Amino acid sequence: MIVVMNPGAKKEQVDHVILRLTQLGFGIHLSEGESRTVIGAIGDRSKALSIGLEAMEGVEKVVPISKPFKLVSREFRKDDTVIELNGVRIGDEKVIVMAGPCAVESEEQVHQIAEAIKKAGADVLRGGAFKPRTSPYAFQGMEEEGLKLLAEAREKTGLLIVTEVVNPQCVPLVEKYADILQVGARNMQNFHLLRELGKTRKPVLLKRGLSATIEEWLMAAEYLMSGGNYNVILCERGIRTFETYTRNTLDLSAIPIVKELSHLPVIVDPSHGTGQRKLVSSMCKAAIAAGADGLMIEVHPDPERALCDGPQSLNPAQFMELMNGLRRVAVSVDRTL
Amino acid sequence: MIVVMNPGAKKEQVDHVILRLTQLGFGIHLSEGESRTVIGAIGDRSKALSIGLEAMEGVEKVVPISKPFKLVSREFRKDDTVIELNGVRIGDEKVIVMAGPCAVESEEQVHQIAEAIKKAGADVLRGGAFKPRTSPYAFQGMEEEGLKLLAEAREKTGLLIVTEVVNPQCVPLVEKYADILQVGARNMQNFHLLRELGKTRKPVLLKRGLSATIEEWLMAAEYLMSGGNYNVILCERGIRTFETYTRNTLDLSAIPIVKELSHLPVIVDPSHGTGQRKLVSSMCKAAIAAGADGLMIEVHPDPERALCDGPQSLNPAQFMELMNGLRRVAVSVDRTL
Amino acid sequence: MIVVMNPGAKKEQVDHVILRLTQLGFGIHLSEGESRTVIGAIGDRSKALSIGLEAMEGVEKVVPISKPFKLVSREFRKDDTVIELNGVRIGDEKVIVMAGPCAVESEEQVHQIAEAIKKAGADVLRGGAFKPRTSPYAFQGMEEEGLKLLAEAREKTGLLIVTEVVNPQCVPLVEKYADILQVGARNMQNFHLLRELGKTRKPVLLKRGLSATIEEWLMAAEYLMSGGNYNVILCERGIRTFETYTRNTLDLSAIPIVKELSHLPVIVDPSHGTGQRKLVSSMCKAAIAAGADGLMIEVHPDPERALCDGPQSLNPAQFMELMNGLRRVAVSVDRTL
Amino acid sequence: MIVVMNPGAKKEQVDHVILRLTQLGFGIHLSEGESRTVIGAIGDRSKALSIGLEAMEGVEKVVPISKPFKLVSREFRKDDTVIELNGVRIGDEKVIVMAGPCAVESEEQVHQIAEAIKKAGADVLRGGAFKPRTSPYAFQGMEEEGLKLLAEAREKTGLLIVTEVVNPQCVPLVEKYADILQVGARNMQNFHLLRELGKTRKPVLLKRGLSATIEEWLMAAEYLMSGGNYNVILCERGIRTFETYTRNTLDLSAIPIVKELSHLPVIVDPSHGTGQRKLVSSMCKAAIAAGADGLMIEVHPDPERALCDGPQSLNPAQFMELMNGLRRVAVSVDRTL
Repeated sequence: MIVVMNPGAKKEQVDHVILRLTQLGFGIHLSEGESRTVIGAIGDRSKALSIGLEAMEGVEKVVPISKPFKLVSREFRKDDTVIELNGVRIGDEKVIVMAGPCAVESEEQVHQIAEAIKKAGADVLRGGAFKPRTSPYAFQGMEEEGLKLLAEAREKTGLLIVTEVVNPQCVPLVEKYADILQVGARNMQNFHLLRELGKTRKPVLLKRGLSATIEEWLMAAEYLMSGGNYNVILCERGIRTFETYTRNTLDLSAIPIVKELSHLPVIVDPSHGTGQRKLVSSMCKAAIAAGADGLMIEVHPDPERALCDGPQSLNPAQFMELMNGLRRVAVSVDRTL
Repeated sequence: MIVVMNPGAKKEQVDHVILRLTQLGFGIHLSEGESRTVIGAIGDRSKALSIGLEAMEGVEKVVPISKPFKLVSREFRKDDTVIELNGVRIGDEKVIVMAGPCAVESEEQVHQIAEAIKKAGADVLRGGAFKPRTSPYAFQGMEEEGLKLLAEAREKTGLLIVTEVVNPQCVPLVEKYADILQVGARNMQNFHLLRELGKTRKPVLLKRGLSATIEEWLMAAEYLMSGGNYNVILCERGIRTFETYTRNTLDLSAIPIVKELSHLPVIVDPSHGTGQRKLVSSMCKAAIAAGADGLMIEVHPDPERALCDGPQSLNPAQFMELMNGLRRVAVSVDRTL
Repeated sequence: MIVVMNPGAKKEQVDHVILRLTQLGFGIHLSEGESRTVIGAIGDRSKALSIGLEAMEGVEKVVPISKPFKLVSREFRKDDTVIELNGVRIGDEKVIVMAGPCAVESEEQVHQIAEAIKKAGADVLRGGAFKPRTSPYAFQGMEEEGLKLLAEAREKTGLLIVTEVVNPQCVPLVEKYADILQVGARNMQNFHLLRELGKTRKPVLLKRGLSATIEEWLMAAEYLMSGGNYNVILCERGIRTFETYTRNTLDLSAIPIVKELSHLPVIVDPSHGTGQRKLVSSMCKAAIAAGADGLMIEVHPDPERALCDGPQSLNPAQFMELMNGLRRVAVSVDRTL
Repeated sequence: MIVVMNPGAKKEQVDHVILRLTQLGFGIHLSEGESRTVIGAIGDRSKALSIGLEAMEGVEKVVPISKPFKLVSREFRKDDTVIELNGVRIGDEKVIVMAGPCAVESEEQVHQIAEAIKKAGADVLRGGAFKPRTSPYAFQGMEEEGLKLLAEAREKTGLLIVTEVVNPQCVPLVEKYADILQVGARNMQNFHLLRELGKTRKPVLLKRGLSATIEEWLMAAEYLMSGGNYNVILCERGIRTFETYTRNTLDLSAIPIVKELSHLPVIVDPSHGTGQRKLVSSMCKAAIAAGADGLMIEVHPDPERALCDGPQSLNPAQFMELMNGLRRVAVSVDRTL
């Protein structure tokens, strides 16, 4: 950690900062430059969270040197984390495909889609039973009834189930039915929810927040891991920018960055990332080429009648065609699908 | 609502859209332009949420005409909402000042600060008992113990209490102690929390999300009001932009915009909005000049020892001086403070 | 074009808007909704630029229906534009690779790099002779001397030359030496420069501005085409967002969007788009998979001694290895390289 | 300057960085932390621009300590710069008001507006003769004819004239007529233009770029000052964010920040900053309360007939009323107007 003092900082202000840092066990390196004094503090950065270094008189800024996350970092674990679930290995050579409707709407819809995506080669069925919706007047999900339908579809098809949990109290309920628990973008910093999910051992799919930096996203994963749950899957799903043509701006550079900073698997959701069906295919291909460990794709038997996010959903025929195209790209970067 | 068809949309695609809209009770105005057909749909926009208009073949985009919020809109209520609490009127001529530490840390800290801000003329004591922190290794709040300290401070000083609630289950607990329940920026779209708070009748202070548009912010307020709680106070606290010099970019134009679109009172938090103590004073003055109904300001007896957000906290002497400056600005725009 | 009136707009205000639009030759469709009156105006949108529709009393907003660009649009030209230069066809099946140093620094550097990229299979040599630099104290380019070195390298290798022009007066000079004239991101809305380049017939490579929407980018291309220069190549190079880990956020979804809206070829610059050498390879692969017609990649014989943008430059060996990887991805999406 | 090495950086990599820095005359402070080695380099940061520190093997990142600007900084000049022009002192106690139409359209328009703003108490007449427009089909300005009209209005009213220069070649022409030369937001990083303006001694009004950080904005001012022109006025005019309700997001916190980092005067343009007439008044008041040295406001005799930016223009009566309100706010923060 580097503490940069103001150009006009007084000697007693410098001494005071050094005193506080020394009390916390930091080693000190003092460096007096032409215009500013700089204090290097060697030690565990998290200890300094308890003192307001930047609030001290004479301090201009504090520059962290080490990363704020530990358990999620490559330094903690050199090898890629591979999460195995019923024979499906997430984070390994095979690119995993999760597909299904935005929201669970009916038995017929779920079974129809589960059959279709299974046939096309998907590994995991997605579908929301609890829907966080911007408008209080929009469909909010089938809740437990929806979870049951997902579980039935698993019985019939052997697909794994991923579904969103929106609330700390709902964790036990969702855990009862789902194989993978999803944290939505709007809940990425719902720390009570993260803490609750840190206690389970079921894999958690953690979506990146709409305006979350990569560091904040990894810190949210750190919440899960610091609670003891090491089965974390990261999911890039687009960030909010000034561009209005797409719903969000899909940040594919996040894939190699996460791979460098962390050992956790990372997948991509181009359906939410773009909000437009016609962009899904090229963004799926790009995600695989960029090194993604998986994809999450919205598929609906009849997108025009979808209760949620129809404009970004593929129909089963489009999904089947997409999968064929993706296999070739996967092979070109030494992966399978 | 306007449905814009693709340049090459076929007649049967246009007919199909019209059919679906007619089934839902919309009146139709068809307009065939040089390159595109445009369908005007007259009726209640929320009804169309259940069909995927944008997912239909031939549709280029759907342009909403009316606002998605109802109860929060000026059209619903022409006069400003004034929330009265124990003689304090929020949304009226007097600019309300809420002040206090980021986090409740100890009895001594709370009482010291409560006395100081009372003396300087503040109306409401703020302080967090549940702290949503980016790092799992940072101080997370005193929880119920903190709430009790706030309530004691109210007894002694007569100040109102505002404090954050981070979780639907905590609502009854926080409600027991607080006068105003705060929803933090990270929870602005925690819809389960909003629904729970829609059931109480205590005023809710709703912070704008880091990357929330004004429309999304007002939709979050609509969640509260659609649950029956009409006592909503909006709070602008800075949005995330590319500028890194400040923690956030305080969007003061949000004040006159909210005043135009809605009848709800709006206050400003320049402490979080800028993240820097030295910017607080000028941003407080600017907020009042722009028409804010109140301010939320972080004050700590010893910012350098604050367990949270010290760099943006004023000490009591700085706060006292600030209040004197603010009174003059308030008068210049026909308000008091 | 749709003119949405305020909820409380008076009849005479509506009549006045209709009068002005009729005077300009627009056909009118009037639609009175529950809360708002909406006026549909059928005709050439650009005619309305001369009246301040949104400034008229009673007008809430104006919603354009048709796109503001004409010549760049798919509606103007259904087939992809292919620009042929000395046997190199940009916008065709083969993915074109432009490579070279950020800045031309010396004869040795240029010749060394030209040989190396030629050997690796690149088509075009890039290199800046005029450098727009954020700091007045940084190296500003070799100017005409640099252009001569580029032209010599062309003689020896047969590579095409692309280089930036920063100023309307410099167009004749740069045109004398270069095959493709580049407009940098900071000059995307330098309209005098665009007008000057609209008069030449040499191809122009138009980089997307740091904070330009796709529509603004295409409007800049419209400036070139409206001047008569139909040889325009678009180049996505990252946009400015809140994320600070990368220099910019590469927006790969811009590729399929541009392909849908326009007939112009689009290439990607992952070197500037990310600012980090280690991200270049995966972003190149992703760009090809997403459908890019070409790539622009920074290569320097000794990145650590580069006078500009060393951190994002590959060395020749890294570039050679990259090219081999890219060929496989190109084939997987039915392209060559 | 601090060079942070990778966790796994080898000793020879560290030695190599130190060697290069020493060769450039930097003093070195080496600090070996728990996970990373950190090299402190004491000396003139601009010298390091010529070596690609971040491109060296083993380097994770380079953290600058001193600011990149010199002449614009408070450290270079402690006292506020006051620019005096014909008795008008910009940067002093009196808040300066610049007002007028977006574009010069006719003799009648200019004279009418000049009279009106003079009467209301403005100091400077603004008006564009060269208009950078997003669409090639929109009105592009009256050019020299417009400059003459502005100069005539100066003769009649005694107002100073500010107008935009969009091109290095136009500088002599615009300089002939104008008192203050304006650099528009889109040209903030048009470095050839800045260099040309660095050679004149007429004051330059430098608008902040749409997506320019405060540091980049000050670096653009450094270009002007490093050319010898010390008469620079900064102008905040809104930045691009995700919020679409306003044309831009006016960043009023930039005022106290610029005042802290620099000695240059800073004014605010709420007309472009918001794009909406109804927001101009409250943002003018807020700007003054935040410490702005001046305002730039669009006024048009008949906004609905304006050839440019009508929706954000006030009419003369609205401007007169605004000025009265602003005077009171100015007094409340110990300024005049």
